[in-house]
Amino acid sequence: MKAPPAVGAERESMDTAIRVQRDFASDNNAGAHPRVLAALADVNEGHTPGYGDDLVTERAEGAFRELLGDAARVFFAFNGTGANVVALAAALRPHQAVIAPSHAHLNVDECGAFERFTGSKIIDVPVENGKLTPDDIERAMYGIGDQHHVQPAAISISQSTEVGTVYSLAELAALGATARKHRLFFHLDGARIANATVALGGDVRAMLVETGVDACTFGGTKNGMLFGEAIVFPRAHPAVEILPFVRKQGMQLASKMRYVAAQFEALLDDGLWLRNAAHANAMARRLAQRVAAIDGVRIAYPVDANGVFAALPPAAIEPLQARRRFYVWDTAESVVRWMCSFDTTEDDVDAFAADVAREIAQR
Amino acid sequence: MKAPPAVGAERESMDTAIRVQRDFASDNNAGAHPRVLAALADVNEGHTPGYGDDLVTERAEGAFRELLGDAARVFFAFNGTGANVVALAAALRPHQAVIAPSHAHLNVDECGAFERFTGSKIIDVPVENGKLTPDDIERAMYGIGDQHHVQPAAISISQSTEVGTVYSLAELAALGATARKHRLFFHLDGARIANATVALGGDVRAMLVETGVDACTFGGTKNGMLFGEAIVFPRAHPAVEILPFVRKQGMQLASKMRYVAAQFEALLDDGLWLRNAAHANAMARRLAQRVAAIDGVRIAYPVDANGVFAALPPAAIEPLQARRRFYVWDTAESVVRWMCSFDTTEDDVDAFAADVAREIAQR
Amino acid sequence: MKAPPAVGAERESMDTAIRVQRDFASDNNAGAHPRVLAALADVNEGHTPGYGDDLVTERAEGAFRELLGDAARVFFAFNGTGANVVALAAALRPHQAVIAPSHAHLNVDECGAFERFTGSKIIDVPVENGKLTPDDIERAMYGIGDQHHVQPAAISISQSTEVGTVYSLAELAALGATARKHRLFFHLDGARIANATVALGGDVRAMLVETGVDACTFGGTKNGMLFGEAIVFPRAHPAVEILPFVRKQGMQLASKMRYVAAQFEALLDDGLWLRNAAHANAMARRLAQRVAAIDGVRIAYPVDANGVFAALPPAAIEPLQARRRFYVWDTAESVVRWMCSFDTTEDDVDAFAADVAREIAQR
Amino acid sequence: MKAPPAVGAERESMDTAIRVQRDFASDNNAGAHPRVLAALADVNEGHTPGYGDDLVTERAEGAFRELLGDAARVFFAFNGTGANVVALAAALRPHQAVIAPSHAHLNVDECGAFERFTGSKIIDVPVENGKLTPDDIERAMYGIGDQHHVQPAAISISQSTEVGTVYSLAELAALGATARKHRLFFHLDGARIANATVALGGDVRAMLVETGVDACTFGGTKNGMLFGEAIVFPRAHPAVEILPFVRKQGMQLASKMRYVAAQFEALLDDGLWLRNAAHANAMARRLAQRVAAIDGVRIAYPVDANGVFAALPPAAIEPLQARRRFYVWDTAESVVRWMCSFDTTEDDVDAFAADVAREIAQR
Repeated sequence: MKAPPAVGAERESMDTAIRVQRDFASDNNAGAHPRVLAALADVNEGHTPGYGDDLVTERAEGAFRELLGDAARVFFAFNGTGANVVALAAALRPHQAVIAPSHAHLNVDECGAFERFTGSKIIDVPVENGKLTPDDIERAMYGIGDQHHVQPAAISISQSTEVGTVYSLAELAALGATARKHRLFFHLDGARIANATVALGGDVRAMLVETGVDACTFGGTKNGMLFGEAIVFPRAHPAVEILPFVRKQGMQLASKMRYVAAQFEALLDDGLWLRNAAHANAMARRLAQRVAAIDGVRIAYPVDANGVFAALPPAAIEPLQARRRFYVWDTAESVVRWMCSFDTTEDDVDAFAADVAREIAQR
Repeated sequence: MKAPPAVGAERESMDTAIRVQRDFASDNNAGAHPRVLAALADVNEGHTPGYGDDLVTERAEGAFRELLGDAARVFFAFNGTGANVVALAAALRPHQAVIAPSHAHLNVDECGAFERFTGSKIIDVPVENGKLTPDDIERAMYGIGDQHHVQPAAISISQSTEVGTVYSLAELAALGATARKHRLFFHLDGARIANATVALGGDVRAMLVETGVDACTFGGTKNGMLFGEAIVFPRAHPAVEILPFVRKQGMQLASKMRYVAAQFEALLDDGLWLRNAAHANAMARRLAQRVAAIDGVRIAYPVDANGVFAALPPAAIEPLQARRRFYVWDTAESVVRWMCSFDTTEDDVDAFAADVAREIAQR
Repeated sequence: MKAPPAVGAERESMDTAIRVQRDFASDNNAGAHPRVLAALADVNEGHTPGYGDDLVTERAEGAFRELLGDAARVFFAFNGTGANVVALAAALRPHQAVIAPSHAHLNVDECGAFERFTGSKIIDVPVENGKLTPDDIERAMYGIGDQHHVQPAAISISQSTEVGTVYSLAELAALGATARKHRLFFHLDGARIANATVALGGDVRAMLVETGVDACTFGGTKNGMLFGEAIVFPRAHPAVEILPFVRKQGMQLASKMRYVAAQFEALLDDGLWLRNAAHANAMARRLAQRVAAIDGVRIAYPVDANGVFAALPPAAIEPLQARRRFYVWDTAESVVRWMCSFDTTEDDVDAFAADVAREIAQR
Repeated sequence: MKAPPAVGAERESMDTAIRVQRDFASDNNAGAHPRVLAALADVNEGHTPGYGDDLVTERAEGAFRELLGDAARVFFAFNGTGANVVALAAALRPHQAVIAPSHAHLNVDECGAFERFTGSKIIDVPVENGKLTPDDIERAMYGIGDQHHVQPAAISISQSTEVGTVYSLAELAALGATARKHRLFFHLDGARIANATVALGGDVRAMLVETGVDACTFGGTKNGMLFGEAIVFPRAHPAVEILPFVRKQGMQLASKMRYVAAQFEALLDDGLWLRNAAHANAMARRLAQRVAAIDGVRIAYPVDANGVFAALPPAAIEPLQARRRFYVWDTAESVVRWMCSFDTTEDDVDAFAADVAREIAQR
């Protein structure tokens, strides 16, 4: 993605008024939900064992099991890169490879963390609408048993995808079936899993358990937490046994684990995670509707979750970025990315859509 | 360290009353300081750029430069393992080795994270009182230029040490001089740097800058933060240029960086970090004084910081652990470890010292 | 590449008569040149220091300096994968990436050895006729300075290429200029460097030194040696200083080094390496001419070196493989690969071309 | 080991006469056995499939199965470092550790290749007479199941050891039993396995199969080959399945495999490997007897195989090194290492023993 005007300049010019303005750069630019913040204070008193041997962690793990079934196993981690890499590292040997879309966060936005930590290779395949298909997998299944080739042993998809689309349950099930056929570990990068769950009607168990996902990154940070992601294995899997060691090696083991666990507890309690995501998704749909009506704007991908990808007249982009920060997704195609968050308001959306209309009209 | 009674059992038997009791297991078993917690709420409003390009991070970096001088460079990380490994990884190539005490956290408590992430080797040397000496370094400087041997290129020490001692300024300066002589990167694991600073009179600049430390892990978690450590380079160093990439690869880059930065800002503000540590150190001294007077107890190492290491009659250990959690440090020698925190109270200390006296007297 | 009929079957059916037949599967299926074999016996007497500190190695290094200039530095290795990976590993840090054609041996035929040993990432780009271009490089130069992206720091090309083409001096110079512009390490996988040198008129110094190549794998195995490749730096480069350590770590340091050195000495002596390659290239041209005349055969790539890539009627492939072993290069396009060696004879070529004509005519 | 006078000087002063002199520096300073050399020529004709799919490799594998039983699996590699690291890499995950003597070649003489390639850690333990004991293993078995500690999962011993001693069958069986008890992979670095086999009476099956060794490096280079080692699994083991991929990643897969295989075939044929070793061992015993009688010489370790370790008057060492090259093993103790080879003669031994007597008498 092409960045907004350079960071140094930005820092200088950004006064307090701008700082607290909500923009569309990323859902990780938002703060934390008040109930999440309150949960930190709630568990702050007294001493607890470190590294996850505490009651708060036990309760949060229980909340996940309630969500996903008793067989689910949960390991908290610091961030999405860590959760993705640790889960795959526990499942793969270095001569094994993971098949993933070319645009996967794992492939292009994690500075090679996967390769460095696992020593494995990513077989990246070009995809449409951000989605890997069974055919993509079949085409990547070559060189099996040949000692000169890395051995495909996993697939990794993002749900929702990097371009704001959401795999349907049928699409996921088809991937799961293909993965089972070839004995591939099915990994799902769920940095925005809540947005996808809402898009599919709210049944996360149907999405993860019944489709055959082996492990997912269950995102917290982009959905109202300060930090923290969960590595979730919906069912028993041999990788679970070594996961704690890999997590420690992956520098993802929090000593004061209660502070990750408490945030997830707050998020899962009473469906807050789904309400946050439902709101963000609604704001994205509202924004898409508003801008789709503007002459000169083309919505580039289906708006299934909380991101809007739109092709704009190139000259309009920088002036708009000066009003609300956002990223250019594809310079060549002049496609920008607008992400909505749990705290994006209807006014934010409407004001920005008006900005877009005005800016384009002026040109 | 030998653990207290097994986790499962512990969890079941631990009721709320016990959970909020303060114990002596680890300074990371304490919660967060109220001012640190408040700082999270203070920076929660509005959107800010992610990954450190925000004003809160800028302010916190400034606070470190005020502390250590304008040349200091600061990179926030999630935890101590991450901060240690990333700093060393930025400085070392895989054929280079780091000389460290056998008991270094890096060597025995990080599940081989250093080896896995860097591919380098630790040359571990037995030390006394937890302290590496220039002679230890000289003895480890062999095979230089020989392609069959890893090439020593760094030293790593803990300050305060794993056994609660503190290197004097003269000891640090001597290590720094030896490091310069052999062109070794001087790394300091400062998970408890505040406790050491207090022990040396409070001048952290004298400790880090004048002694020749190249990089340190500046601990936050064990001194009242929820999570977060800082990788600090007191002076310009070539490793600084690649540190951001290594941090990202090391899965230590927080997206909502403001929440790490704000905690450090609160901690550095008005000397809170030193007051927290001074209190913990005082509690350790108090505990040492109380138990040293008990027949059958021997203080195993000088109590320079916030940990007390004591040899006890073996039979007394488990009953005492049932009262307040703590770890056995050396089973063979029957030495236990008691750590004090910023929130340990005089009553905690006195009550526990009385427990120790009573338990030993009964045997 | 699609393999010939399975190994087990092949082994059983392969009697001595077939075993000593020359085929077109790979130039590494040939034996060693008699003069290379004789050189082993010549250096066999007595004891010499191991690991390269011997006079034979010194002489062979001298032969390379005569070939390439006094500034050249040479390190012998066991095989091509080792030579490629060690050279790049000495030049790159793990957050840095190498730009290479998608079909690069490094990328698809070395089982991820590069990723596993270096922890770095390959940015693979689709190319035409096997050749990377300056434009390909420019397109891959994005995300520079962005901590989320691996940093392009090298290019790696094969000369001759994987499809039997040869970069012209002008093409190499243009790559070299682009590499210098972006401060990229210019690596050349010369498993078939002799064939390329001959194709360009025999001036290896013009090819390596004047074009700006930083390091190359100078192939021996495919050109008449039993085993052994050389990592050659035509000019001074910082990576040279650590190369010996990286080679040892890369398990590529021969203890009885004289046996690698002696082979290279024999090969470089009196131009044997060029004569071997010239013959192989001539045989490939002869084969291409013969088969190009056959209706139903299309030469897929320019035949610049010792490989012929030809599209055949699919049904003809297996019957032909039963006569002389060779690989299918592209199943979808029905393109096969025929490699010629220093010991391929005109009779081999003519007989096989006749086989091809006959086999196709029958269908 | 302290090296003989520096390499540069050595090279200059070393004339042909000295070069072909046999010395005592290392058994890898010897040349190749004539029958091994002849075997290379025997298999040189014609084309064969690469990478081990050839009849020579098949025959050599068969020779190993004849030696060790039908369940044995053999993978050829280039050198000892490669064979050791690849075998262990196939058996271990990065969070698992290998227990080995401090002086293990793997630990001190391979430039950290193990750590770099596997990401795992070596738990090195001080040993007597070069031998690991079951008690050493038991002491290293701590932190099991603790996510902060690497998990011991293998032992690695050298047979014969780095100091020329040989584990008895009973000692090996005891190690094997302890390994089984703790589910540890039992790895044996047999760079000098022939010398050990001879020392134990010649029954290699008893040594490897009945004692419970899981994998060994079966040395060829030090016993009359030009290069080449074999990774041997005496019995079925899960690591065998992935060994080919790990070998390729470890850059240890020879393309012209027949040239490694043919050497082993020659060595195993008719017991040549044992005769070579028996001779070298006999020469070591003869040397030990001769020098033990000299006043001022102390034999430092039992002379079980082909190395003599002797404490000498320090002043005698350099003058003796000027006569025949050898290494100082322990500078502090003034212990030198003299290695005998398959081609060491009685005259070599007697002349050198006389040199030693003369040199010491003069001081």
